[in-house]
Amino acid sequence: MANILTRLLPRERTFFALFTEVTANIQAGAEALADIFKDYRDVPSKVSHVKDLEHRGDQLTHQIFTKLNQTFVTPFDREDIHALTGKLDDVLDLIDAGATRLVLYKVDKIRPGAIELADILVRSTQEIHAAVSRLEKLEGVLDYCITINSLENEADTAVRAAIARLFQEEKDPVEIIKWKEILEVLEIATDKCEDVANILEAVVLKSA
Amino acid sequence: MANILTRLLPRERTFFALFTEVTANIQAGAEALADIFKDYRDVPSKVSHVKDLEHRGDQLTHQIFTKLNQTFVTPFDREDIHALTGKLDDVLDLIDAGATRLVLYKVDKIRPGAIELADILVRSTQEIHAAVSRLEKLEGVLDYCITINSLENEADTAVRAAIARLFQEEKDPVEIIKWKEILEVLEIATDKCEDVANILEAVVLKSA
Amino acid sequence: MANILTRLLPRERTFFALFTEVTANIQAGAEALADIFKDYRDVPSKVSHVKDLEHRGDQLTHQIFTKLNQTFVTPFDREDIHALTGKLDDVLDLIDAGATRLVLYKVDKIRPGAIELADILVRSTQEIHAAVSRLEKLEGVLDYCITINSLENEADTAVRAAIARLFQEEKDPVEIIKWKEILEVLEIATDKCEDVANILEAVVLKSA
Repeated sequence: MANILTRLLPRERTFFALFTEVTANIQAGAEALADIFKDYRDVPSKVSHVKDLEHRGDQLTHQIFTKLNQTFVTPFDREDIHALTGKLDDVLDLIDAGATRLVLYKVDKIRPGAIELADILVRSTQEIHAAVSRLEKLEGVLDYCITINSLENEADTAVRAAIARLFQEEKDPVEIIKWKEILEVLEIATDKCEDVANILEAVVLKSA
Repeated sequence: MANILTRLLPRERTFFALFTEVTANIQAGAEALADIFKDYRDVPSKVSHVKDLEHRGDQLTHQIFTKLNQTFVTPFDREDIHALTGKLDDVLDLIDAGATRLVLYKVDKIRPGAIELADILVRSTQEIHAAVSRLEKLEGVLDYCITINSLENEADTAVRAAIARLFQEEKDPVEIIKWKEILEVLEIATDKCEDVANILEAVVLKSA
Repeated sequence: MANILTRLLPRERTFFALFTEVTANIQAGAEALADIFKDYRDVPSKVSHVKDLEHRGDQLTHQIFTKLNQTFVTPFDREDIHALTGKLDDVLDLIDAGATRLVLYKVDKIRPGAIELADILVRSTQEIHAAVSRLEKLEGVLDYCITINSLENEADTAVRAAIARLFQEEKDPVEIIKWKEILEVLEIATDKCEDVANILEAVVLKSA
């Protein structure tokens, strides 16, 4: 990834541009989800906006795979581009899954813990976007990865506390089933952010 | 994977033969599961037939690992053979998990959505079998992978609708717990089919 | 991994020493969890001991990643060191998750099946520790991996039976939700042990 090499292979740079667009889109998805929780009105149209972002993510995923298929020299390992694309897609799928469940389960009010988890997810996606934006120059990527890992631990603690409280305060088992899943989907999304961080770490380690 | 090379290394071809046997077996498993849902009679013996197919799958998995261990030159990356074998095994494990739960949970009648999901799973395993059957010649593999990916999206939509309906129509929380899991197991099986497709894509991309 | 090579690169050997410390720590975690189930008294302090082991595991994980970052020639593939470290961390996270849920869910008595599953997990972590202790010399590693795989099948059968019994004997859906998850966490921990075994297998296959 020496500077001269990327200048000689200008088309290859657009992998980085595509990934940066993917991660900006994921961050927008996480922010839109957090906004639903914070201002629980007009929910179906907000959920539908998250779905639009998810479709946009699918298109970008498809563009990356097509480009990968047509490109002989890739800026980092072909398999890592493949794995990174897949995991980034998972993050947005889970954000969409969280939003969709609010409508499908006819959730009428937000429970404690959901906002906190959505905020952790927003911060994780911001870190991912920052890391991917700097991936070409490899600057500071490992530091972002460390933060993403610690946010995942934070989400883990938050989801445990929220679920404990759910069992304490809610007596209707059907409500428990629904909310336990919504909270867990948010936490799994931060898990997938950690998977993304692990791939980014591996990419950096290999190119070191 | 040039033709002359495979002729000079005839024993290596049997990896493809083994994988094709594995995927035919998985397809048979998915079809047997769909048949249980469609004609919900004589369930224990049908579930036991799925278990037999799962055991057959385990034997084939073991044969591939043993062969991998004894083979110096493999027809595609050793790690990909390993990963593909593992993910194919996961698909059949989940088919078996779905079937087994019907007996373990003493399910007495089939709910809406299960047949549709089982049918999507049958189609996914048909596509996997078609892709793997053509892996040696690399013909059309990527097209099958695209179909498997879109079937996974279809399953995702179907499972969401089926679970929303479950919450709407079923008031017994224990029934909700049982059926939510059965429906989710079917959906996770199609997720694993997508993982298989991703490995197949990576194999094709590397050998391009 | 020839003997002369490891003598010429003495610092590299400590990757093996670190991994052996990691797996001893995981085994201690599994044993501590099994002890909670077997003697269900003084639970909060025992759960807190498991959490301490989990923190110790996090420190070791961090040491391995730092070392990986500073090491040019690694004793086996950089990506496999990365993947192995991550999966080992997952095993201990799940052991901790199982223990923590006992406190969070205010579990007052242990249900059938939990002890059996915890015992299978102890045996899996013993096999992992034995395999990793012998990884440098590659002696018998594949045999341990086979045992870990068969323990995972055993755990799968045990969890299915335990959950079937839970549905049979327990009528309170909230208890079902809590215990189903605790049992499943134990089983997923053995799944992760199998993932560890698969990486160890791949490491051995590559170096063969």
